[in-house]
Amino acid sequence: MTREQLFEQIKAKRSFLCVGLDTDVRKIPAHLRGAKEPLFEFNRAIIDATAGYTVAYKPNLAFYEAHGAEGVAQFEATCRYIRANYPEILIIADAKRGDIGNTSEMYGRAFYDADLADAVTLAPYMGRDTVEPFLKYEGKWAIILALTSNKSADDFETLTLAGGDPLWKEVLRKAATWGNADNTMFVVGATRAETLKEVREIVPDHFLLVPGVGAQGGSLAEVARCGMNSRCGLLVNSSRGIIYADNTGNFAAAAAAEAKKMSDEMSAMLD
Amino acid sequence: MTREQLFEQIKAKRSFLCVGLDTDVRKIPAHLRGAKEPLFEFNRAIIDATAGYTVAYKPNLAFYEAHGAEGVAQFEATCRYIRANYPEILIIADAKRGDIGNTSEMYGRAFYDADLADAVTLAPYMGRDTVEPFLKYEGKWAIILALTSNKSADDFETLTLAGGDPLWKEVLRKAATWGNADNTMFVVGATRAETLKEVREIVPDHFLLVPGVGAQGGSLAEVARCGMNSRCGLLVNSSRGIIYADNTGNFAAAAAAEAKKMSDEMSAMLD
Repeated sequence: MTREQLFEQIKAKRSFLCVGLDTDVRKIPAHLRGAKEPLFEFNRAIIDATAGYTVAYKPNLAFYEAHGAEGVAQFEATCRYIRANYPEILIIADAKRGDIGNTSEMYGRAFYDADLADAVTLAPYMGRDTVEPFLKYEGKWAIILALTSNKSADDFETLTLAGGDPLWKEVLRKAATWGNADNTMFVVGATRAETLKEVREIVPDHFLLVPGVGAQGGSLAEVARCGMNSRCGLLVNSSRGIIYADNTGNFAAAAAAEAKKMSDEMSAMLD
Repeated sequence: MTREQLFEQIKAKRSFLCVGLDTDVRKIPAHLRGAKEPLFEFNRAIIDATAGYTVAYKPNLAFYEAHGAEGVAQFEATCRYIRANYPEILIIADAKRGDIGNTSEMYGRAFYDADLADAVTLAPYMGRDTVEPFLKYEGKWAIILALTSNKSADDFETLTLAGGDPLWKEVLRKAATWGNADNTMFVVGATRAETLKEVREIVPDHFLLVPGVGAQGGSLAEVARCGMNSRCGLLVNSSRGIIYADNTGNFAAAAAAEAKKMSDEMSAMLD
């Protein structure tokens, strides 16, 4: 999916919501837990209920890999279901992969050769070798961790370099030269909304994937005020706040209501 | 596996060799490519041929995940085969995972709840949250990337911090406080053997996983001279140099010969 197609979808749906599919078998409604493919069954219902309010889905690989090969098969089934029924929606494989060239190439094949995803999240520690193989696919994206919203992000991401900048700014600056705004996005946590202004000074045009709104305490209004650009430039992710809004037989309708609420807020911000 | 058990195995086999199972279906002998589980069939032959010279196997997850759920099933079969036939050998899942707490916990479950592996490689960018869930398992290991041997390691790993040290030293120093030498190892590339002396000043007791000998140009003798401690403290990995020593029907015997050659060199170094 191109940047233009993503922006067109955002305008059409009046939403820049990404729904995180962190599907945990211990948290889904009891009546689904006995299904043959409980993660996929849950996802399918969530997707059908929220697709009208959502421009991206982000399955978190760890939650599928925790169940071994059977879990991975349900990740694949989820991606194929989105492709078949909602081909306009961006699929982000939240894998946070980070390895050297020949290994990174294998990860690229895992997600892109079978067209399971449009974008993969990547960790920058090992440098350009990690990212480059993902930039060779037309219409696909590398989404690089810059400044995350977890507590221990300060262990390394915000360390001050000899030049005076924090590490995450050097990651933004250097990684932005490997690709361009048409094939690279960055992860910036919502819990640091003011920092989004500094991010925009370095990468004015790139899309940012922003987790941390909702359960982690970030404010959607602040994120939009500090991080939006003229082509929106934001994908705001919510996972638990939407998919676990209710854990009874009403879970899908409750998820739809939460997604609608967020996309209604977003609609006003897009004016 | 405890540090003591690992050291006992090293003394018994007179080897500190780790064989990397970067099993690529395009590189294995032609007669195996048509098998139902070609990656597993190849691995099984390599394992049977090399187990006497090897203290650890390191399957690289990317090579299995490139084949989706079927590939992951072959990773699992490989781990179970080692467990059943060579229970003394350490299994390292080379996954380079790096995520926040609740996600990292799911990755821990993926590898440890089913006892597939003894150790998992982890990327440090997001800090302590990534590593902590892996330290809760008795007898299991977190192996943290410090200084890698790939070309673009200099993009971020060697950046100078305001205090004057390179980033990788701060990673070593901080990450060493999260666990201890009984549950944490570090990855340090063999192509920087002299640097191993500096590593040893910071973490004298930890085991180091050292890739980059052989195909990537690192010298085993230099690695041992600069990095060994009184309990060995080294696992030196070789992947391509061993498993692809030959790609005819003779591949397993050729792998055994290469593994024996390395373990013979190691034997002398252990005196």
